[in-house]
Amino acid sequence: MSHSNFKAFVFDAYGTLFDVHSVIEKCNELYPGKGEAISRVWRQKQLEYSFLRQLMGKYATFLAITRDALHYACKEAGAELTEDTEKQLIDSYLKLQHYEETEEVLNKLQTYRTAIFSNGSFDMLNPLVDQSPFSSLLDEVLSVDEVKQFKPTPMSYQLVLDKLGVRREEVLFMSSNTWDIAGAASFGFYTAWINRQGKVMDELGVKPHYEYGDLRGILAHVE
Amino acid sequence: MSHSNFKAFVFDAYGTLFDVHSVIEKCNELYPGKGEAISRVWRQKQLEYSFLRQLMGKYATFLAITRDALHYACKEAGAELTEDTEKQLIDSYLKLQHYEETEEVLNKLQTYRTAIFSNGSFDMLNPLVDQSPFSSLLDEVLSVDEVKQFKPTPMSYQLVLDKLGVRREEVLFMSSNTWDIAGAASFGFYTAWINRQGKVMDELGVKPHYEYGDLRGILAHVE
Repeated sequence: MSHSNFKAFVFDAYGTLFDVHSVIEKCNELYPGKGEAISRVWRQKQLEYSFLRQLMGKYATFLAITRDALHYACKEAGAELTEDTEKQLIDSYLKLQHYEETEEVLNKLQTYRTAIFSNGSFDMLNPLVDQSPFSSLLDEVLSVDEVKQFKPTPMSYQLVLDKLGVRREEVLFMSSNTWDIAGAASFGFYTAWINRQGKVMDELGVKPHYEYGDLRGILAHVE
Repeated sequence: MSHSNFKAFVFDAYGTLFDVHSVIEKCNELYPGKGEAISRVWRQKQLEYSFLRQLMGKYATFLAITRDALHYACKEAGAELTEDTEKQLIDSYLKLQHYEETEEVLNKLQTYRTAIFSNGSFDMLNPLVDQSPFSSLLDEVLSVDEVKQFKPTPMSYQLVLDKLGVRREEVLFMSSNTWDIAGAASFGFYTAWINRQGKVMDELGVKPHYEYGDLRGILAHVE
């Protein structure tokens, strides 16, 4: 299939358009010297809990999971989480910094369907997108919460097709997360791995179709 | 329910009866200075790949996954994996050290049903158990490979009931892995978390019924 046949450009949110580790500053402000550890474990457990709850059949919203993961990260770091610090940290998750090239890239995709497709629930995804400069450049913001199926289950990716009215081979899906790329490629999307940190691809039996250092790489697929 | 009503004592294998990090020595022998990192990432990816493949609907045996995870760990560490070093490392996984108290504890459980219930496939689980001194003290060695459902899905734990012919509340399930404890408790087993390293319990909405520093703790439930 030629790249010019893509009809929809679909983006993961966390780690792909928004930098999840931009909370380090707030973590360090509240817990001096522990910010990096808390931020790292917070993200790790957030992902792990979404996978495990899906496997256990105990779905909870990504916001609830994000809060649970923060509790774990603070306990492990020996940092006391109060009602106030929890509120500040969760708030900072609603204002994550976006990667600088996002607006420019979305601007060049305006003749295509564009969407975010995220594990995030709308109560965290909408505030995040609304405060970004590219909110109006997206046709759709899609959340797995509508089907209560976290990525990378096949049923989660199906939501993209149902909502955008395209076929799977017409989708180019972007994510920085290797597990998300594996899930999307396994489902049948074309995939572009946004590998910002020069990481190693996971060994899950599927490879990304394309790999770029940042989002600008996907403009090679735009006419 | 009183503890004396337990009919079956069921043990996770990796991390619970056998020390997964006893491969560090072999890793260090083959890749000096990188053994700890390789061993840590190997285990982390082994677990992650089992979760992700289950979510993606792409089951593979735990032995295949263990090999994939080793490939990732070596790539990330910049260590070249040859056919020979791969064989040596996989072989060392079939000879993991057991925790010292295992034999004593299993000996005291001989009037109950005892079983291993593991994500490991028989091609790695059987050699491991056979080379241990307590092989004859176990009634059953159960593998999720029979149902192609990795823990912590409810369908995986169901295998224990089907094979042992007991009801879920008659089972005391032991694991060092917090995600396994969460899955088993969520399914309806009684659970004893063997917390050897004083870790923090995960925030998955379920707690272990009991927590012990090693396997001897469960002898409190033996008449």
